[in-house]
Amino acid sequence: MSRSSAIVVGVGAEVGLGAALCKRIAREGYHVYVAGRTLAKLTQVVEAIVDAGGTAEAVVADTTQEADVLALFDKAMTPRDDIAPPDLVVYNAGNNRYVPFTELSAADFESFWRVGPLGAFLVGREVARRIAPSGGGTLIFTGASASLRGKPGFAHFASSKAGVRMIAQSMAREFGPQGLHVAHVVVDGGIDGERLRQARPGVIAERGENGLLNIDAIADMYWTLHRQHPSAWTQEVDLRPFKETF
Amino acid sequence: MSRSSAIVVGVGAEVGLGAALCKRIAREGYHVYVAGRTLAKLTQVVEAIVDAGGTAEAVVADTTQEADVLALFDKAMTPRDDIAPPDLVVYNAGNNRYVPFTELSAADFESFWRVGPLGAFLVGREVARRIAPSGGGTLIFTGASASLRGKPGFAHFASSKAGVRMIAQSMAREFGPQGLHVAHVVVDGGIDGERLRQARPGVIAERGENGLLNIDAIADMYWTLHRQHPSAWTQEVDLRPFKETF
Amino acid sequence: MSRSSAIVVGVGAEVGLGAALCKRIAREGYHVYVAGRTLAKLTQVVEAIVDAGGTAEAVVADTTQEADVLALFDKAMTPRDDIAPPDLVVYNAGNNRYVPFTELSAADFESFWRVGPLGAFLVGREVARRIAPSGGGTLIFTGASASLRGKPGFAHFASSKAGVRMIAQSMAREFGPQGLHVAHVVVDGGIDGERLRQARPGVIAERGENGLLNIDAIADMYWTLHRQHPSAWTQEVDLRPFKETF
Amino acid sequence: MSRSSAIVVGVGAEVGLGAALCKRIAREGYHVYVAGRTLAKLTQVVEAIVDAGGTAEAVVADTTQEADVLALFDKAMTPRDDIAPPDLVVYNAGNNRYVPFTELSAADFESFWRVGPLGAFLVGREVARRIAPSGGGTLIFTGASASLRGKPGFAHFASSKAGVRMIAQSMAREFGPQGLHVAHVVVDGGIDGERLRQARPGVIAERGENGLLNIDAIADMYWTLHRQHPSAWTQEVDLRPFKETF
Repeated sequence: MSRSSAIVVGVGAEVGLGAALCKRIAREGYHVYVAGRTLAKLTQVVEAIVDAGGTAEAVVADTTQEADVLALFDKAMTPRDDIAPPDLVVYNAGNNRYVPFTELSAADFESFWRVGPLGAFLVGREVARRIAPSGGGTLIFTGASASLRGKPGFAHFASSKAGVRMIAQSMAREFGPQGLHVAHVVVDGGIDGERLRQARPGVIAERGENGLLNIDAIADMYWTLHRQHPSAWTQEVDLRPFKETF
Repeated sequence: MSRSSAIVVGVGAEVGLGAALCKRIAREGYHVYVAGRTLAKLTQVVEAIVDAGGTAEAVVADTTQEADVLALFDKAMTPRDDIAPPDLVVYNAGNNRYVPFTELSAADFESFWRVGPLGAFLVGREVARRIAPSGGGTLIFTGASASLRGKPGFAHFASSKAGVRMIAQSMAREFGPQGLHVAHVVVDGGIDGERLRQARPGVIAERGENGLLNIDAIADMYWTLHRQHPSAWTQEVDLRPFKETF
Repeated sequence: MSRSSAIVVGVGAEVGLGAALCKRIAREGYHVYVAGRTLAKLTQVVEAIVDAGGTAEAVVADTTQEADVLALFDKAMTPRDDIAPPDLVVYNAGNNRYVPFTELSAADFESFWRVGPLGAFLVGREVARRIAPSGGGTLIFTGASASLRGKPGFAHFASSKAGVRMIAQSMAREFGPQGLHVAHVVVDGGIDGERLRQARPGVIAERGENGLLNIDAIADMYWTLHRQHPSAWTQEVDLRPFKETF
Repeated sequence: MSRSSAIVVGVGAEVGLGAALCKRIAREGYHVYVAGRTLAKLTQVVEAIVDAGGTAEAVVADTTQEADVLALFDKAMTPRDDIAPPDLVVYNAGNNRYVPFTELSAADFESFWRVGPLGAFLVGREVARRIAPSGGGTLIFTGASASLRGKPGFAHFASSKAGVRMIAQSMAREFGPQGLHVAHVVVDGGIDGERLRQARPGVIAERGENGLLNIDAIADMYWTLHRQHPSAWTQEVDLRPFKETF
């Protein structure tokens, strides 16, 4: 009997959503392909999974580079006795940063697109090519409130996230009827992870208990989506702290 | 130790979403107040729950009548040693029927409003008055694709469902920060229950496997919503069969 | 040659949107049926139109009463040599008031529905029955930001306005292809009219120049919608003061 | 007295929306900077405007190239005695083509982004930098139904158009209160222009009278948006043929 497997793209800090997704999925007995740009960070996540009795492997991949994405899927799709091809892929790459609109450079604007719609497309296309034909599988994209609304100082981010959402929606309409579950999670609010803790150390106290999104609670929803019965699939779901205004 | 309890409003046929919600919640150890208009139907659901080792009681209540809704909450909120006050309420009442717009009577139009926004308001208000002050609880409304879109022959239904959705959204923004989780489930597609099986017997075969929404799969999402951590609550989620066009 | 004619439902204060719509349409040479609950108010509007060289007549009608709506259309559709049957109908009835959710009475909740979806349906149905068969005509509904979003203290209003919007959308999808143009105007912001001036006298100064919606500017858009070429119809358009946050 | 002026970006075929916008604006007495990639096409439009008694000049510019966009604005913003700086800018560049998702190349995906969000950002940023500080002006983006929905075979297009929409929305929220009117026109349906006539010659007959969007009717709405009073601005409006399903 081979283990099931999953690919998580966009794994950075050890205390971040990407890492939490990897650990959550590994805990369910999946072998996890932990994909991101920085080997040291990926290795930390793999070690944490192995320490907890799971299995995982790091795959250095920049999701904005087509060759890296192809190599990632080549690796994960290579037939193995012990591990089945992935039936769960998460696209979690992303960035966020306030930039005044008039000061935004074309290079910055492009970099937000690369880690957003371009990476989402490259990963989505390989899932459509290599997993959808099996008649099953799940593909989940991480979204944000900016996927639905543009705000001052975040035009680049909203433009990127809305583009990702449209890929998710287009794929759901095309590949859902073929058995591929494509879902989009609108993460609305600050995530209680390493990035925010470093960038705004006071934010935890300021928001109070449960005022930021708990990464394990977010990860639970991804797993729920993957386990949904094909007769009742979710295409889009939002997640926000109970006290978040929206 | 007292058992937790829940109220499910809008329980009709034994093979329907309301009944499935009651059974699902009872299976988790909850005492369920099974509310609907027809005692015989409620009793069937209660008996099924008791047969399975759970506890439940029927409460005859027409959700379009304020007095009935008040009486339902009076009953469920009465202090008991064995059963805690409800911390989960589901508003599942609803109807659907194609009616050509020019032939729609004012009485019919009103009846769709009564079972929709009016009932949702009456139940929602009691939850806001009696459960929200405790700083916890979950309130879930059953929606439909018509909550988001109006179509020919369904103006009355869309008008009703969109009205319910706005109550859910307004309540979520007001009572979420007080600890009450208010969610709206967009059920998009035919539900594989008694109503559809009687109205269109051929539809099961026509849609094929998993082509209709499985009521137990829907009920799973309601339970998931109730169990969400307050740091990552869902306000709206859609559910549809994998092959449903949207 | 007979004059064209229009019906405007929901005409109240002389300095209000309903009155501005009547005057704007009359200025284009239309005979206007000025419909509302209070004869004295209607008469003021009719007189202002006549003083400006136009023609109009008051029709006392409570849009929440089916008989009144039928009588209004009976009157306006009666063949006349000098005046053609209406080819433009505006549903402008509506109310707004903050009410804490837990204090909202069922009677209040119902009254918001009556002036919203019920009246919109009654008027819309008569347009569908009596004007759509001619293969032309325009029907415009006045919406609000609450048509799209529910907020604390406005559940009753959002529920009502979202219901109106769904009637507009359902009708557009059904009767548009038959030649009836159905549009929905999302008026987002305070209207600089009698109601607001009386309720919050300081608001004009507080908002500054153009900080409130000018009623004549709103009326311009209604006329634009009516004049649109059938090859490029608008179903929904928003209007808000330039400095309004949204 | 100097003439007002406008920039229209994305002018191609002489019978296309870009050209129609130029002609419409010129007819109002504006000097028009006609911007696009192909000089011959631009010259045709300029000549048509001059023949009709207006003034215009061609500016060869590829909106996906930052240097071209900067040069375009340098030119149009250069002080002149006879012509005022532009107070109206239209971003009309765009492409559409069905491509099966699994066959979409990264280069194709990128090219849709370049003509969409990238160009929209480059033009929008110059408007924010050079026109917004004057406290006035209008910026209009051409959208499509794909701005709001993703469909099979159009993931690249929807991703691009949704990205443009978010730039429009972000800019509106940021620069509206400064006096810059930013609007987004959702063009939903086939445009009766050279592109469609060449690609699908039979479509005109097939759709019947007014079954395609008339370019002059579309252009009318752009002009209406530009002329709106600041107390009642539109951020988003849809346009579709009366018989289009949606």
